[in-house]
Amino acid sequence: MQKLWAEGLGTAGLLISVIGSGIMGTNLSDDIAIALLANAIATGCALYVLITVLGPISGAHFNPVVTLAFLIRGEIDKTTAFSYVATQIISGIIGVWLAHFMFDIAILQASETARNGVSLWGSEIIATFGLLFVIFGGLRARPDAVPSMVAIYITGAYWFTSSTSFANPAVTIARGFSDTFAGITPLDVPMFIVMQLIGCAIAAYTLPRLLKD
Amino acid sequence: MQKLWAEGLGTAGLLISVIGSGIMGTNLSDDIAIALLANAIATGCALYVLITVLGPISGAHFNPVVTLAFLIRGEIDKTTAFSYVATQIISGIIGVWLAHFMFDIAILQASETARNGVSLWGSEIIATFGLLFVIFGGLRARPDAVPSMVAIYITGAYWFTSSTSFANPAVTIARGFSDTFAGITPLDVPMFIVMQLIGCAIAAYTLPRLLKD
Amino acid sequence: MQKLWAEGLGTAGLLISVIGSGIMGTNLSDDIAIALLANAIATGCALYVLITVLGPISGAHFNPVVTLAFLIRGEIDKTTAFSYVATQIISGIIGVWLAHFMFDIAILQASETARNGVSLWGSEIIATFGLLFVIFGGLRARPDAVPSMVAIYITGAYWFTSSTSFANPAVTIARGFSDTFAGITPLDVPMFIVMQLIGCAIAAYTLPRLLKD
Amino acid sequence: MQKLWAEGLGTAGLLISVIGSGIMGTNLSDDIAIALLANAIATGCALYVLITVLGPISGAHFNPVVTLAFLIRGEIDKTTAFSYVATQIISGIIGVWLAHFMFDIAILQASETARNGVSLWGSEIIATFGLLFVIFGGLRARPDAVPSMVAIYITGAYWFTSSTSFANPAVTIARGFSDTFAGITPLDVPMFIVMQLIGCAIAAYTLPRLLKD
Repeated sequence: MQKLWAEGLGTAGLLISVIGSGIMGTNLSDDIAIALLANAIATGCALYVLITVLGPISGAHFNPVVTLAFLIRGEIDKTTAFSYVATQIISGIIGVWLAHFMFDIAILQASETARNGVSLWGSEIIATFGLLFVIFGGLRARPDAVPSMVAIYITGAYWFTSSTSFANPAVTIARGFSDTFAGITPLDVPMFIVMQLIGCAIAAYTLPRLLKD
Repeated sequence: MQKLWAEGLGTAGLLISVIGSGIMGTNLSDDIAIALLANAIATGCALYVLITVLGPISGAHFNPVVTLAFLIRGEIDKTTAFSYVATQIISGIIGVWLAHFMFDIAILQASETARNGVSLWGSEIIATFGLLFVIFGGLRARPDAVPSMVAIYITGAYWFTSSTSFANPAVTIARGFSDTFAGITPLDVPMFIVMQLIGCAIAAYTLPRLLKD
Repeated sequence: MQKLWAEGLGTAGLLISVIGSGIMGTNLSDDIAIALLANAIATGCALYVLITVLGPISGAHFNPVVTLAFLIRGEIDKTTAFSYVATQIISGIIGVWLAHFMFDIAILQASETARNGVSLWGSEIIATFGLLFVIFGGLRARPDAVPSMVAIYITGAYWFTSSTSFANPAVTIARGFSDTFAGITPLDVPMFIVMQLIGCAIAAYTLPRLLKD
Repeated sequence: MQKLWAEGLGTAGLLISVIGSGIMGTNLSDDIAIALLANAIATGCALYVLITVLGPISGAHFNPVVTLAFLIRGEIDKTTAFSYVATQIISGIIGVWLAHFMFDIAILQASETARNGVSLWGSEIIATFGLLFVIFGGLRARPDAVPSMVAIYITGAYWFTSSTSFANPAVTIARGFSDTFAGITPLDVPMFIVMQLIGCAIAAYTLPRLLKD
């Protein structure tokens, strides 16, 4: 139960940072690049502290694809994995609502930002593969650095993938509920998740061979 | 006494960084987002070095809410706590004045920037809870990383909370004395402090249960 | 063979970050400085995670000049060095193509960005010397910090060298294949590589004397 | 002799980063805040790698005021201190010239940027005190973190002091030779150095009492 609280608090905190900093950035600047820069830096900052604090409690997945990858490796059981994923999805949405509340905009929203097409889908495959590469490669090479590695990877991947690296089904679903800078129309959510699962499958197959772990 | 010097120097240094970088940012740019980005980064930089150096001496609270949280946990006695808080408030104001002096503007000022409303107040509750989560969660998970965790949290929280995360009554009072980018009109100071205390109370109640420490 | 996979994945990942973040930056902003800032930060982020994960496997060279420097020091044999360099060059180009695919632009391109002249050439000598200084000086002073040192050096060197610090023949060749922000016309590639080799030669001669290692 | 090479290389590298990134920033952007942000980040990046690599060799002062502070503490002898300072001043100027060469502008220049007045002078006192606080406080609290602490302090202090924290007589003299973003007219150099010495004196008197070391 403590683990589920940790997953919930972490995923909610992650979404607060993604949505909140996106709103702040677009409120303050006409230059979208500056908004994205703030968005990327703030998300990285939040991830670093959330993973450092909550990692020892729940593993700090905050991401169904990460939970799935641990399940495939046999390092988490099915029941726990299922409850993790449910918690991540619910608390991600709560995080979005808290951000809306803080920025004084309508709590309930649906995004109208289209994010689709082969390029963005390929981007999500690469982004998700990259995230799992960082997590499992980091756990192998330098476990104590994993919180900073994930944070730094995501900060960079906002910029070097065309989809700005959602790489997380719970985050993707939650962003469907926000018609702000970081939103994605609910219509486009399913394909993003499919691509993230493909990225996960590729990582699950290749990483053990590549990293020999 | 050495502890009070440390709290004083640290809180003054924190306010120099908050007020000074805010003035520099708005002096140099018409884009408020860039000013806020500089403000956030400079504050994070200052926090990292101040907490690293002064942590071993006084604990590097620089924040009455942090001192209060340690008092609730019974890790500091009432007399010390009281003298810490008084020192923090006084030296925060001195820090503001030093920033005004460096930037060649009137030393004595009162801010006219309104910061109020339910959303901003809720933001301060969340910001303060988050800060205490980072401090006490960090002390539990990885004590040597607490200076960087606090610095990185605040850098991010400038962006993902609508109030830009004051999260500190001494800082809030001091910012009342500066009619610059980071200011807050004295009229709005009391409610910010109330919200910070509420955030502290929530953290004091929930964190021991969540973190099981 | 695992080593070659690591070099290939790392160099491809490096080019994805260089090219991808350059495209994203110029897509989003009219201010070239902001594009370069994003470019520099994203490249640094990618380097940090790639070197941390892949360093223990292949040494994480991702750069023919680095491989050459290790060869000169007798820490890698000629056959391995040759296969490293071939892998770096091929996978760098693949990384560029993956970035083009993600950003939905023509896969096959040739850059038309001229980068030549004595100043830029001198800049590449200094940039390459600096990179090898950081790597071999870092290995001597603090081996566990080398991934962050290389990442941070490159992030800074984007700004303090006029050529934005290619400092890597495989990266230079690959950037010839991208008519985007980070590109270099193929005509100017050879001289950049010559300068990088000169920087390597200067480092190979002076660093053992300077660092006494 | 190895120590002098290290001081020379480090100070030259520091000036390359200060001057070079200033030129790059103003070349690319009309927004001075973005130029200063790049300037601050690039300088911090350079300082981190230079101090990490050269610290074990020479102590990585790169700054006459730092050398003077070590002399006052009796941790360096007068002859060495004198040769350090001479090396720092000469190599700082060489660093400026290398930056001018890389950016294809006249090698020999004199700055016409006025930087004077009580506020800027006070700013230099505070900036220099802060730097010595970070160095000697860091050596006491966490010696392995000193390279990152100095780098992070300077990155922040660009923003929260009105003078952008020269805090270094060798850097100040060298910047007199560059009529670019980071320059200072030679007429204003002496008073900046006087203020830096005052900051050093205050630090030398108060830090041992404050830090009890």
